[in-house]
Amino acid sequence: MIVLVINAGSSSVKFTCFEMISDPKVLANGLIERIGLDGTLMKYSNHKGDEAKREVTVKNAEEGVKIIAQKLVDSKIGVLKSLTEVKAIGHRVVSGGEYFSDPVVVDARVKEFIDKCSVYAPLHNPHHLLGINACEATFPGVTNVAVFDTAFHIAGIQPHAYLYAIPYELYTEQKIRRYGAHGTSHDYVSRKAAELLGKPRQNVRAIVCHLGNGASISAVAGGKCQDTSMGLTPLEGVIMGTRSGDIDPAIVWTVMKLKNLSPVEADNFFNKKSGMLALAGIGSSDLRDIEAEHKKGNKQCTQALETYAYRIKKYIGSYLAALGGADIVAFTAGIGENSATMRALILKGLDDLGIKLDAAKNSERSGEARFISTNNSPIKIAVIPTDEEQEIAKQTLALAIVK
Amino acid sequence: MIVLVINAGSSSVKFTCFEMISDPKVLANGLIERIGLDGTLMKYSNHKGDEAKREVTVKNAEEGVKIIAQKLVDSKIGVLKSLTEVKAIGHRVVSGGEYFSDPVVVDARVKEFIDKCSVYAPLHNPHHLLGINACEATFPGVTNVAVFDTAFHIAGIQPHAYLYAIPYELYTEQKIRRYGAHGTSHDYVSRKAAELLGKPRQNVRAIVCHLGNGASISAVAGGKCQDTSMGLTPLEGVIMGTRSGDIDPAIVWTVMKLKNLSPVEADNFFNKKSGMLALAGIGSSDLRDIEAEHKKGNKQCTQALETYAYRIKKYIGSYLAALGGADIVAFTAGIGENSATMRALILKGLDDLGIKLDAAKNSERSGEARFISTNNSPIKIAVIPTDEEQEIAKQTLALAIVK
Repeated sequence: MIVLVINAGSSSVKFTCFEMISDPKVLANGLIERIGLDGTLMKYSNHKGDEAKREVTVKNAEEGVKIIAQKLVDSKIGVLKSLTEVKAIGHRVVSGGEYFSDPVVVDARVKEFIDKCSVYAPLHNPHHLLGINACEATFPGVTNVAVFDTAFHIAGIQPHAYLYAIPYELYTEQKIRRYGAHGTSHDYVSRKAAELLGKPRQNVRAIVCHLGNGASISAVAGGKCQDTSMGLTPLEGVIMGTRSGDIDPAIVWTVMKLKNLSPVEADNFFNKKSGMLALAGIGSSDLRDIEAEHKKGNKQCTQALETYAYRIKKYIGSYLAALGGADIVAFTAGIGENSATMRALILKGLDDLGIKLDAAKNSERSGEARFISTNNSPIKIAVIPTDEEQEIAKQTLALAIVK
Repeated sequence: MIVLVINAGSSSVKFTCFEMISDPKVLANGLIERIGLDGTLMKYSNHKGDEAKREVTVKNAEEGVKIIAQKLVDSKIGVLKSLTEVKAIGHRVVSGGEYFSDPVVVDARVKEFIDKCSVYAPLHNPHHLLGINACEATFPGVTNVAVFDTAFHIAGIQPHAYLYAIPYELYTEQKIRRYGAHGTSHDYVSRKAAELLGKPRQNVRAIVCHLGNGASISAVAGGKCQDTSMGLTPLEGVIMGTRSGDIDPAIVWTVMKLKNLSPVEADNFFNKKSGMLALAGIGSSDLRDIEAEHKKGNKQCTQALETYAYRIKKYIGSYLAALGGADIVAFTAGIGENSATMRALILKGLDDLGIKLDAAKNSERSGEARFISTNNSPIKIAVIPTDEEQEIAKQTLALAIVK
């Protein structure tokens, strides 16, 4: 049983082709990047170790999906005999607004709602729709499933955690509320966390730290999301690569006045020119570069790392209070999985709250889900590699079979 | 030894006249309100139970201070024989920026800095200066001391807690950082908390919840403030009467575009038309009114109260993490001292974190500092009435004597 996962963005289409055995196997994956620009590049690799990388002429997502389909059945590096082997296609969709708290089989009505939700994700949803249309054309008769980044949050988070203290009609009429993002990852990692603990998910309270270039923290109890750090947009929450995260809202108009920015320019300023890029001041938003500079003695970088870690520490504390305690704190995504230094900095001083890091385990390198807390730590700490594509594939197959 | 405390605002001058014995005694207090408007009113009462309330003609702070001085030596309701009995005058000053981490005797240079800090507190600092000038004219030769709302925070909070993840030069050049407010109250209440615990302040970690119409939470360890919820301005943090508190910064430009607001109008919107006023939707920002409506079954009010409490609960958790544990959680100011319902709602579910409320003690009415936690609660909970005027008087006297 083959499931294809598509993530169609503004200038790229990513894909993963899964064989859906009990532990889904990646047959092939890759992406087409710089779509519509010079130097459009296709990267493809399969489970046999074949790799391909070449310039292609691709004007839009539809043409991109066609090239991906050709590669999948290519006589040399393909992994399928025929495109009819594809049982279903799962699409990552950034925003489903309040409409979708579960993945859904795509039909005309669903596409209308995805289009409506473009107001929450103007840079993403329109391209997801192009990707869906391209798959409908290229894989006729195959079930398309939309898996929403917001669904896990929408399904769980209650009003006291999603409402903002602004006029109530901005919620009822304009739907301004906390939506969060990275939902598929928070869902997947919190389920894996329960498996690692050997407990039914129903009985587990987990704090998930998804720390990548974008970053969000969530509080999950009984398999439902209770709160998450991203808000109406992915700007709120912890400090990110180029996003400010939480600030005094008054800083927005203070900076707008100071720099004479329009609302659109302010959006760009706090989303693209802030965060670690701005705080560390070395022209890179990559935590590895900032950690390297810190090791060389750059004090501004040290300060930026401490600020970054402290904000995450505070979120862990606040979710500890929100959940009334926790069983596990899980780290995932690029920084969460790979920076032992950052994990140690975040967790420093939390021993008395029952969160005890084992320095040796924390330093071990491994791609596996594993504990990094001391054996007697009341709250376990884990590193759990996320796999949003696999999660999307699973959710897609589940719906395709029902259908 | 007599110390006068003056809080000169945009349309009012408040005063308290203390006899500085070991437990300072209020000889007289009151205010002049609606200065410069129709129906300017003076309210005055003294320790003998005399009260006066009458319309006065007062155009500005200077005239207000003169009238207050007259009352203090009034043959019928006065409490002093001569104004020369006043040893020193303490002035509440909202912002001292990064310049002042302690109270300071006012001279020409100090006044210049208070003027400079008007950029952080445009609605307050200019009026404080008028109040100081008025006192210099009315009480010639008497020492004036400025006690800053920001000083306690500036003295303690370290870069990782005061920096925002925006271009670093906005801090170095524009001084955009976390300043906080209510510092005098957080200082006073955290000191009283240590006294209540019977421990040296140096060994106490306290989380202070100052909940009034304006509200802020602080984390204090070893007598120094480690973090506080208000930021560059008093807008950041928990939900307040008419202030939104924390929001996704993207909500600012989303609402600006939606309602076609200028930066100045946005400031007004999130400071004056948001918060509990906006969320509860009953036309009042007063928690007592909202609690009353909730009891009558108004669901939007119930939801607003739950949202309000939840945000404070999250701050308590985050400061628990920031401090690595706590000895005491203290509630103060109007709501913190008087709403047992709100305290219970905030602390619900925190037992496993060692914060155990005693329902009976919580419900008792008392004006005294007292514990409201169970006897076996690892972290104590207390209600501690704040007294910013007394604190200002003490800090003022300490400086005046040194001088």
